[in-house]
Amino acid sequence: MKIAILGGTGDIGEGLALRLAQKHQVLIGSREEAKAKEAADNYNKRLKERGLRDEIVGMSNQDAAKNGDVVILAVKFQFAIPTLQSVAEFLGGKIVVSPIVPMSKQKLCVYTPPAEGSAAKHICSVMPPDVRMVVAFQTLPAPRLADLDDPLDFDVIVCGDDEEAKKVVMGLVSDMDNLRPLDGGGLEEAKLIEPLTPLLINLAIKNKMRPLSIKFV
Amino acid sequence: MKIAILGGTGDIGEGLALRLAQKHQVLIGSREEAKAKEAADNYNKRLKERGLRDEIVGMSNQDAAKNGDVVILAVKFQFAIPTLQSVAEFLGGKIVVSPIVPMSKQKLCVYTPPAEGSAAKHICSVMPPDVRMVVAFQTLPAPRLADLDDPLDFDVIVCGDDEEAKKVVMGLVSDMDNLRPLDGGGLEEAKLIEPLTPLLINLAIKNKMRPLSIKFV
Repeated sequence: MKIAILGGTGDIGEGLALRLAQKHQVLIGSREEAKAKEAADNYNKRLKERGLRDEIVGMSNQDAAKNGDVVILAVKFQFAIPTLQSVAEFLGGKIVVSPIVPMSKQKLCVYTPPAEGSAAKHICSVMPPDVRMVVAFQTLPAPRLADLDDPLDFDVIVCGDDEEAKKVVMGLVSDMDNLRPLDGGGLEEAKLIEPLTPLLINLAIKNKMRPLSIKFV
Repeated sequence: MKIAILGGTGDIGEGLALRLAQKHQVLIGSREEAKAKEAADNYNKRLKERGLRDEIVGMSNQDAAKNGDVVILAVKFQFAIPTLQSVAEFLGGKIVVSPIVPMSKQKLCVYTPPAEGSAAKHICSVMPPDVRMVVAFQTLPAPRLADLDDPLDFDVIVCGDDEEAKKVVMGLVSDMDNLRPLDGGGLEEAKLIEPLTPLLINLAIKNKMRPLSIKFV
């Protein structure tokens, strides 16, 4: 499958690219094509050093969105709408995955959902109506995802109203090391998933632990 | 320590009583004293059968609140305010623990926080100002807590603004089998903890799993 990762040059995009590249064609998108190509080169080099499949390609966000079967929005909440508006014409009928969490950092992290109740619902408002929106990856800590020595023995909750699209994304989760996908319900349930990101950050801060993920037992 | 469990005759109160009774004096409270005594007898019988400490005592919510050093509100959200109002005069200066989560069951469970942002903050509004409020136990599934064969290899997040009170409650968590207490921040952070209960219920429903708890890894 062709997986476009918009904003794939940093944060969670990096780890998703490195891990998904083993079973899929990964297209790194960025506002600046040169930055995307540079990131792709860097990722491929690290994969090659380990004898892993190194076929990640860098391009503009538009080209990535146009060519991807699944489009992952690996951008911060404040860039989600402008990024989507710049690629909206290519998204019709596609699976779009949001790992986005609106939050602000005060003494601890605070979940700051928009009026729609979740980032996922907010994002839907600027997308073509036939986009197949899925929510996932909120609980994956970026540095551990990008550390290929980390076995990723975590659970990932996937939410969406399109059952078939949700299954495709649950399959992508299974494709990454030891990650276990769990069905979290529909898009309405995104508001129960997004607050997990500030919670995980706060727990690591307060208990002086490494970046945390989650397992349901 | 004397632990009063208001509404200790059912749901999460049952498991907390059975587990805490091994290291503490547990006082089961109920609106009806007879019901509390009956529950205490039942719990003690089950503990005795296993050769465990069986000294749980049943009494009215008022007597439990009066005599407890720590008071756990093991009641549903809709009964929290009337229960608290009936015992408020005994709570001054005490540690009060809220495992309460406001939620409604539709097709899946929905978190329905009051205007204050969380049940914890809402509850504070009817309590004496010197009550030392702590939030805990939201992620413990009642049937597994009450099943003494379950090793409880879970994490429990504890939040509160009174650091000393929070430490006492984190100690109570450690006193129960394999539970690990984690500091979740202040009362403001309760709004990140309470939604975990509907999330856990939904995950068990959607993925056809047993009642779930949580571990941070």
